Amino acid sequence: MGTACALLLARNPEHRVILWCPQVDRARLLAATRENERFLPGVKIPGPVEITADFKATAADAYVLAIPTVYLRDALQRLRPAWPTRGPIVSVIKGLERETFKRPSEIIAEFLPGSTVAALSGPSHAEEVARGMPASLVAASEIRGLAVDVQRWFSQERFRVYTSDDLIGTELAAALKNVIAVAAGICDGLGFGDNAKSALMTRGLVEMVRFGCSLGATEKTFYGLAGVGDVITTCVSRHGRNRELGERIGKGEKLDAILASTRKVFEGVWTASSVYHFALQRGISVPVTTEVYRILFEGKDPLTAAKDLMTRDLKHESGPWE
Amino acid sequence: MGTACALLLARNPEHRVILWCPQVDRARLLAATRENERFLPGVKIPGPVEITADFKATAADAYVLAIPTVYLRDALQRLRPAWPTRGPIVSVIKGLERETFKRPSEIIAEFLPGSTVAALSGPSHAEEVARGMPASLVAASEIRGLAVDVQRWFSQERFRVYTSDDLIGTELAAALKNVIAVAAGICDGLGFGDNAKSALMTRGLVEMVRFGCSLGATEKTFYGLAGVGDVITTCVSRHGRNRELGERIGKGEKLDAILASTRKVFEGVWTASSVYHFALQRGISVPVTTEVYRILFEGKDPLTAAKDLMTRDLKHESGPWE
Repeated sequence: MGTACALLLARNPEHRVILWCPQVDRARLLAATRENERFLPGVKIPGPVEITADFKATAADAYVLAIPTVYLRDALQRLRPAWPTRGPIVSVIKGLERETFKRPSEIIAEFLPGSTVAALSGPSHAEEVARGMPASLVAASEIRGLAVDVQRWFSQERFRVYTSDDLIGTELAAALKNVIAVAAGICDGLGFGDNAKSALMTRGLVEMVRFGCSLGATEKTFYGLAGVGDVITTCVSRHGRNRELGERIGKGEKLDAILASTRKVFEGVWTASSVYHFALQRGISVPVTTEVYRILFEGKDPLTAAKDLMTRDLKHESGPWE
Repeated sequence: MGTACALLLARNPEHRVILWCPQVDRARLLAATRENERFLPGVKIPGPVEITADFKATAADAYVLAIPTVYLRDALQRLRPAWPTRGPIVSVIKGLERETFKRPSEIIAEFLPGSTVAALSGPSHAEEVARGMPASLVAASEIRGLAVDVQRWFSQERFRVYTSDDLIGTELAAALKNVIAVAAGICDGLGFGDNAKSALMTRGLVEMVRFGCSLGATEKTFYGLAGVGDVITTCVSRHGRNRELGERIGKGEKLDAILASTRKVFEGVWTASSVYHFALQRGISVPVTTEVYRILFEGKDPLTAAKDLMTRDLKHESGPWE
């Protein structure tokens, strides 16, 4: 996603874009081949994008951070002393810190206090963005001027950015949707069809709203690009990692065996565990997450979980009768 | 969908279910083969479901109406004199009347005044429902007791029904989503990928809300099963008729040629036209519908339409800055 953002920003000739790659060898290879062969094979990095492993050489008016949540704390700790300026930070990081349940912008604030942060989120597979396929995202910040700046920096013919003031909701949605993606994958693995999967995504969205709002998010965010938009891509795309994990679980594989067989990180697994415990403590109803948790961590049979989900007390969806 | 509902209701041994089929020959064949070979091949209609072509023999405590919108007015006109009782009506009809823009329940009220009506809607491909695959729907009525009755009549282990008081929104969502499905199909036809399609569905939902609420719908309905749930199934499923039409348009076919080649009814085409003109009159912004209209009826190039959609004035998504 870091490379994809560099490509996007470099399309504007007024931007000077520096792509920082921490490994000296990889940075050298990138600069020589002008191609991120590992993640974006076949996509040329244009000449104007400078590539460096020297963090001190990256002093800029603004920073785009694309470090996976799981490495974010360590990276910031290491980088803090050398951080060149206090320019605003655009986070394209999706996920919550496993141990602390903190959002990326909260971790950034710990290490770079005083920096302003915007989250750029929504349905955005990096491969598609890098290949110039259209996408629409949302730039969320507590500071209006920064959200509008990010919108202006990134927007172009095939990349449309909306602004939002809900940083909390935008970051939460990006993490919570991974739990729904695991559930949607389980639904696929059970061979349940389109009706069941769409209903699951819809009811998953309802509990994302309930949980997110209890943490200070705005409901509307979940009905926008960072919410339902990202839920759809993540649950529907064949390439979604969390969906794929769910599908294997739905077909009968066990979590331990899957985790032992790969080095991939499945954010949805740990987010499910965190959300489950947090919701339990606070008495927030999250039936989909609860069943995902029980299937993943308590060995519950997915078919039984689906049945339990379908046969709970009958509910009201909308209106003043509740 | 009528057959699928009969199968569902007949699973409860307390129900006496009569399946009415207007054509005498077809009713006789159905009764002999116990199979709707045309729409649901391979699905057995169980013994307890009575099959008749004699409308007078269908006197019942409640009626499920599954007549396509385009035939509804004629059918009700013909049936009205013989309508056996004034039991409540459950409409599983999706769509708006082309000439009048009326919802199914409004047409029903014209011919059967005094009958109470509930709409049962949500992601519900009949094939999946008939084959016992799980689904969750919403029963909406202005009369709470009827919504709760419908919920009770239909709910079972693999079919979960929520209640809603928003009949208007539920019926509007079922029709408006077909326009978004055409747009999503065009997106597929252009080869635009998951990011673009999810964003289009999300922004389509935003304008469904805007348009629907101007007609008296409740916003929340569009974020529920009859709204986003049905949008997802209709836009994602390979079998969706409106999505398929859009895909052919996106690949360069013209509407006239497609319509001339088939007897299929594409509700989304006519709904797009109605919504476009209605929104224009009232000054409601419906950018996705507008581009669909221009592509279908004014021969606009789909790629130009996509570009115009992406490069409009930059917008705010959510929050008090608007």
